[in-house]
Amino acid sequence: MKLCEIINVGTELLLGEILNTNAQFLCRELAGMGIAVRRILTVGDNPERLKEDFLTALGRSDIVVLTGGLGPTKDDLTKEVVCEALGVPLKEDPAQRQAIEEFFERRGGQSGCSGQDSGISASNFKQAMVPQGCIVLGNANGTAPGCAVTREGKLVALLPGPPRELRPMFGTALRPLLRPYASGAIVSHHVKTAGLGESRMAELAGDLLDMENPTVAPYAKEGESYLRVSAYAAAKEEAEALCAPVIDSLKKILGNYVYSVDQSLEETLFALLLEQGKTITFAESCTGGGICGALTGLPGASEVFKYGFVTYSNEAKQDLLGVRGETLSKFGAVSEECAKEMAEGARIKAKADIAVAVTGIAGPGHSEAKPAGLIFLAAADGRQTLARRLDTGRGDRAYNRVAAAKAAMALALDLL
Amino acid sequence: MKLCEIINVGTELLLGEILNTNAQFLCRELAGMGIAVRRILTVGDNPERLKEDFLTALGRSDIVVLTGGLGPTKDDLTKEVVCEALGVPLKEDPAQRQAIEEFFERRGGQSGCSGQDSGISASNFKQAMVPQGCIVLGNANGTAPGCAVTREGKLVALLPGPPRELRPMFGTALRPLLRPYASGAIVSHHVKTAGLGESRMAELAGDLLDMENPTVAPYAKEGESYLRVSAYAAAKEEAEALCAPVIDSLKKILGNYVYSVDQSLEETLFALLLEQGKTITFAESCTGGGICGALTGLPGASEVFKYGFVTYSNEAKQDLLGVRGETLSKFGAVSEECAKEMAEGARIKAKADIAVAVTGIAGPGHSEAKPAGLIFLAAADGRQTLARRLDTGRGDRAYNRVAAAKAAMALALDLL
Repeated sequence: MKLCEIINVGTELLLGEILNTNAQFLCRELAGMGIAVRRILTVGDNPERLKEDFLTALGRSDIVVLTGGLGPTKDDLTKEVVCEALGVPLKEDPAQRQAIEEFFERRGGQSGCSGQDSGISASNFKQAMVPQGCIVLGNANGTAPGCAVTREGKLVALLPGPPRELRPMFGTALRPLLRPYASGAIVSHHVKTAGLGESRMAELAGDLLDMENPTVAPYAKEGESYLRVSAYAAAKEEAEALCAPVIDSLKKILGNYVYSVDQSLEETLFALLLEQGKTITFAESCTGGGICGALTGLPGASEVFKYGFVTYSNEAKQDLLGVRGETLSKFGAVSEECAKEMAEGARIKAKADIAVAVTGIAGPGHSEAKPAGLIFLAAADGRQTLARRLDTGRGDRAYNRVAAAKAAMALALDLL
Repeated sequence: MKLCEIINVGTELLLGEILNTNAQFLCRELAGMGIAVRRILTVGDNPERLKEDFLTALGRSDIVVLTGGLGPTKDDLTKEVVCEALGVPLKEDPAQRQAIEEFFERRGGQSGCSGQDSGISASNFKQAMVPQGCIVLGNANGTAPGCAVTREGKLVALLPGPPRELRPMFGTALRPLLRPYASGAIVSHHVKTAGLGESRMAELAGDLLDMENPTVAPYAKEGESYLRVSAYAAAKEEAEALCAPVIDSLKKILGNYVYSVDQSLEETLFALLLEQGKTITFAESCTGGGICGALTGLPGASEVFKYGFVTYSNEAKQDLLGVRGETLSKFGAVSEECAKEMAEGARIKAKADIAVAVTGIAGPGHSEAKPAGLIFLAAADGRQTLARRLDTGRGDRAYNRVAAAKAAMALALDLL
């Protein structure tokens, strides 16, 4: 398997001004081609350090992909440094010079309100300089071309920093050049569970975690844990065939904790509702609209979702959902009894097949009896009402809200 | 100025499964303390490579911050590798063991119907092992403690990978240890605007964008644009003093487009509602609960928010908000008329001081007359009803939903 290192160049990255989404994009694409990324390095606009790091990376890898530093200003120096390190001169590419002239001509034609100074300056032509003998990678979305240089069977690629320029350039221009280095494919799947802690899930998975191909690795996110099954093979189909029996074993071992392979909770719930031709409604207190928001994030959600209730106050719970005053005064709004009445009331009010309700303490505030992270859930379908108590043990408002929303969707799946 | 390197550990990062937000967070925080990050390295769960890279980083920097690989499973090996590289043994920290036991006891106390298997496993106690002689960094949001080791005037810090654990740990436990390494400060503020495109905003800012200290840089996010004003000085106060007049100038130039400095739209709206002692409700169609979700994400939201309506279907709009059938049949659900009736109906139904309604085409589907990205908003306070039409010109569902939610909050600010 060929090894790759990525070097992201830009002081703005080291200052935290920009989130590095290019690294994730490139890693995904390269993994999909069966090229293993071993290291990602982010460095600033400093020629000495960049040269040193570039040569180190080239020494131990087959492919080095550099991003950023191809712009027109003085601190854009990736091309210059790479050329110096490789001992290759920069020379002007006439086609690129022409492309830059044309780009500015077009922009010059647009109205001044764009706020862009559209005059061409000498520094713009710096972008037409490319390493001698390189393959120029055309930029359909900006003026900085990328380039690729081969050296003793190794490939060095330079891509522009802006994601809207880098992504299409990778797909159309760099990917074909990488194909000779691609060997097989890495395929990954996620066996997703709800209601199970990461360490307990890992314990159940047992020896499967020691496999080498596929590898099985446990991960945790707010309110859910999952196992990544990742296989490498000569072809995608073979990698899939390596994953399949392991996924089956994990599903068997983890049983009902598994809610899907690869799909999110809302996608799983949406698909099941569609399949059963049912509608759902949510009555949300501490999640504040987050469950409705997650489901309606999916195109076509209106097929299964018509009404949602955000009942933040006691009065709203009584008024919109018909929760009884007696229930609230006896058990409080954060109680199983209240959650059940919320679900039952919401189902009738929304004329939905099933309703799920959530009420809890999101935090950071709390009391002795009802700590932050204590959440009651209920799901009703007119025949039965399931209830569940969740205690995250945390005071983190954002975590508790997401965990509660996920538990609500998991409860809906149980009811269905 | 002291030099720092960051090492993010995790094969999931190299496979592109996770976006590395920790690096950006740490870079921002460190820059704010006047500590220069020179390199960010991402490596996989491979002990040999991690050891080599760690020792290289330690050799040339004053501070090395490692993230990830502190979990309970076998592939979590950052602590082990760092200890081996430094020649320090791991030993159990009794306080951490107790903290882990307490965490699980609390979770174990919940009723079995929760579906959460809260059993403690032997591997959890791996997390109580820390480098001998280190400073333990408490984890208020998980079971993996961080730690800091000093060595010949240099500092090595290990932080957990999950951002919700890493961020508070940095603020409360690591920041004080970094203070002796801090020199000077970088201060940044964000002048936030709504209803103004990035390029027009930049044009209005004019020559201020060419300043060197503070620097002024334009950014755009879904539905809003902002200018970052960033100054460096020996002390935080001096850096603040450099920013202040530039922020004032920008506020003057941009006028009513500026809705806040630094605060988000929901924070600004929440603060203004609290100040005026008013309550708000939202009637959401295409945003599907996103606006209620954003506001209730803030602790104390129940002071100003009691009811929210997610009226996804026409029937729900009529039933819960009293939108007239005639309005729907004549103008359609995606119309100014419908938005106004939604807002007016929601205000009365929720007994709120003001109500904001949103109805639109989130996409990706569309029709000739009503393309994706066409959104109508209305805000009512009982005396008047403001309406606004927004057309993002995009088919991107997620973008349109966020842009619509922000426009709704901006409209509420206008009404207030």
